[in-house]
Amino acid sequence: MTIERFGHGGDLVTAQALFAIEEPKWLDFSSNIYPYGPPPRVLEAIKRELEQPGVPVLSRYPDPDARALRQAIACFHQVDANGVVVGNGAAELIDLIVQTLLPSRVGVVQPAFVEYALSAKKRGITVQSVCTRWEEGFLPTESQLETLIREVDLLFVGTPNNPTGHLIPYERLEQMAAWAKQWQTWLVVDEAFLDFVADGEARSALQLVASYPQVLVLRSLTKFFALPGLRLGYVVAAPAVSARVQAMRTPWNVNGLALTAGEVVLHPDVYQAHARKVHRWLYPERTRMVRELGRLPGVAFFPSEANYVLGRIIRGQEQAHQLQHACATQGILIRNCANYPGLGDAYFRIAIKKPEENDRLLAILRSWFG
Amino acid sequence: MTIERFGHGGDLVTAQALFAIEEPKWLDFSSNIYPYGPPPRVLEAIKRELEQPGVPVLSRYPDPDARALRQAIACFHQVDANGVVVGNGAAELIDLIVQTLLPSRVGVVQPAFVEYALSAKKRGITVQSVCTRWEEGFLPTESQLETLIREVDLLFVGTPNNPTGHLIPYERLEQMAAWAKQWQTWLVVDEAFLDFVADGEARSALQLVASYPQVLVLRSLTKFFALPGLRLGYVVAAPAVSARVQAMRTPWNVNGLALTAGEVVLHPDVYQAHARKVHRWLYPERTRMVRELGRLPGVAFFPSEANYVLGRIIRGQEQAHQLQHACATQGILIRNCANYPGLGDAYFRIAIKKPEENDRLLAILRSWFG
Repeated sequence: MTIERFGHGGDLVTAQALFAIEEPKWLDFSSNIYPYGPPPRVLEAIKRELEQPGVPVLSRYPDPDARALRQAIACFHQVDANGVVVGNGAAELIDLIVQTLLPSRVGVVQPAFVEYALSAKKRGITVQSVCTRWEEGFLPTESQLETLIREVDLLFVGTPNNPTGHLIPYERLEQMAAWAKQWQTWLVVDEAFLDFVADGEARSALQLVASYPQVLVLRSLTKFFALPGLRLGYVVAAPAVSARVQAMRTPWNVNGLALTAGEVVLHPDVYQAHARKVHRWLYPERTRMVRELGRLPGVAFFPSEANYVLGRIIRGQEQAHQLQHACATQGILIRNCANYPGLGDAYFRIAIKKPEENDRLLAILRSWFG
Repeated sequence: MTIERFGHGGDLVTAQALFAIEEPKWLDFSSNIYPYGPPPRVLEAIKRELEQPGVPVLSRYPDPDARALRQAIACFHQVDANGVVVGNGAAELIDLIVQTLLPSRVGVVQPAFVEYALSAKKRGITVQSVCTRWEEGFLPTESQLETLIREVDLLFVGTPNNPTGHLIPYERLEQMAAWAKQWQTWLVVDEAFLDFVADGEARSALQLVASYPQVLVLRSLTKFFALPGLRLGYVVAAPAVSARVQAMRTPWNVNGLALTAGEVVLHPDVYQAHARKVHRWLYPERTRMVRELGRLPGVAFFPSEANYVLGRIIRGQEQAHQLQHACATQGILIRNCANYPGLGDAYFRIAIKKPEENDRLLAILRSWFG
C-alpha cells in the first residue's frame, strides 16, 4: 500500500497507519499549504460566528446562491458576479466543469494534478495527454499544444503547474485561448497556486475571460490561506458558461463557515496583508531551499515559482518511494510522484515550509543523498 | 420573484431582499431544523479543534477517505464501514447516486423533495412520476408502485416524506425492495428526517440493505442535530454499490469540522441524550400544534410523523403565496409548496419550532384564517 493510495499528498491518516506515528506528530511536506496558518481575522470571524446565540452559522442553511461571497470575489477580481461559481474546494469544481461541459475528450498536459484525468476517466471520457519532459522545461511544443487543443473538447492546464511549479508564460496562455476559440475547445486554467506568485494577477488567465468565452479560470482559497480543511474554491468564466456550471451544482455546496472565511480573506486589506506575509516568507525561503537542495549530490530540483519543488533522483538504483520511506520513519512526509503520468518513481515533491521545518527535511536529505 | 427561487426553504438572503427584514430577525418555519441547536459536545469539540496550535482542522486536508467517521457510522448502525459513503449534505449524495448509477429513467412518488427530479433532469434523464393525493394519504396504490419500479431504473422515496411528513410502513418498504430486486431497479430510501421518529430505526430501510443489494439508504445529520450550515450526510448500501458511489466522489468532499461533528454526534451517549431531548420537545409540541392548527377554519393539515406539517388552504380564492406574504411582512418565513409537483399554490409547509415561536406563527394564522 502506498501513502498516496487515495491519489494525493497530505493523507496523514494513511501515514499514521503505515508508520505508527500519530497524526499530529507528522511534518507534512506532501501537501502545499501556507505553513503559518490562516489570517487571524478569519479565525476571529469564525469564532465570532460560533459565539452567536443559536449558532446560526451552523444551524441554518448556507445561502444557496452564495451571493455575498460571489459578490466579494467579483469585486476582488473586478469581474461580473454572474461569472463566478463557488465550490467545495477546487476538486469539486474540476468535477463540476467536466459534468457540465460534457466533453467527449479531455486533454491534459502531463505531469499535472491527477484530478483532471480522474474526473474524465470515472465518467468514461477519453483522456488525451501530451507528456512533457523535464529537459524541455515541462513545456509542450507549440505544435503539440495546438494539436491537443484541436483534438480535445476540453483542456486542463495548471499555472503554476502542480507538481512541477512552473508558470505558463502569459503570451502562451493567450495563444492557447486563441486556439481554444478557433477550435471551440474549452480551456480550463487551474490557478490554485497562483496567489503564491507575487505578480500572479499579471500572469492570470482571468484577463482572457472577457475576450475568450471558452476560458474558465479555477482558483482556490485554501492553499494560500491555509484553509484546506474548510474547502473553498471558485471558477470565473463568461456569465453564460458559469450559469451552466452553477445549474449543475447541488444546493448548499459551500458550507457556512467557508462562506464566512471567503468573505473575510477577499477583503482587500486582509488579502494584501496576507499576501505580503506569504511572499516575504516564500521568496527568500524558496531561494535558500533551492540553494541548499542544489548542493545535494544525486538529485536535481526543477525551478519552481510555487510553494513546492519537484525533485528527481538521478543516481543509481534508489527510488523516490525509498526516500519517502526514509523520511517517513522520521515523521516527515514527502510526496512520492510515481502516480503522475510522465514522471515515475524517480520523482518526489516537497512543499516549502517554515525555515526550521525545512532544516529538518534538509538534514534527512543530506544524510540520504550524502 | 418567489422566495423559493432556488427551489428550497430556508433562503433568508432572498427573504431579506424581498421584505427588507434583516436575516437574523426572521423566524424561519420554512426549513426543518431542530430549533434548540446542536448538542453542546459538538460545539465544544469544534471550539477545541479551533484552539489547537496551528489550527490543524482548518489548515490540513480532511481525511480523503473519512475513515474515522465512516467507522463511527458503521458502529452506530452495526453495518460494514465499506458500505458507508459520506457526503457534503444529503443533497450532494442524491446527485452522486444519480451520477454513479446512471439510470435512464428516474422514478419519483410526488410530492417529494425536489432534488430527486432536479438531479435527473439536469443530466437529461427522464423523470417518471406517480402523483399521489392528499385524500389517499399521499400513498400510491400497490399497482402504481410496482409499475413504477418496473419501468424506471432508480426510484427515490422519502420516509418520512418531505413535504408531507408521512412514513412509509415498513412492510411496504420491504415489498418495494422485493420489487426492486425482481426488476433490477435501484431503490433509494431517503431517511433524512427519520431520526425525528422515536422508533425510527424499526421503520428504517437499513434493515433491508443486507438482503437487497438494490437498496441504498440516505441519512442526514444536519436537520436532527441542527447543523445544516456544516453539511453532512451519508449513504449506507451494499459494499459493492457503495464502492461505486465512493469512487464517483471528489476527494475531501466532507470538510474537517463536519467530520469532527459527525464523529461526536454518533457517539451513542451523545446521540441518545440528544434524541431524548428532541423527542421530548417534538411529540408534545407537534400534538399541541396539530390541535391548535386543527381549530383554524379554511385550512387543513396533513398528519405528520416528522418535524414539519403540510397545510392546505381549502377556502375561497386565497392562495399560499398570499399567506406566505402575510407571514413574511411580520418576519415569519413559511414554505410555499407551489413548486412541488402534485401540490400547487394551495399548499404550504411549516416546521415545528419552539413553543413560543410556534405561538407567534399561530397568532398570525389565526388572524389570517379567522
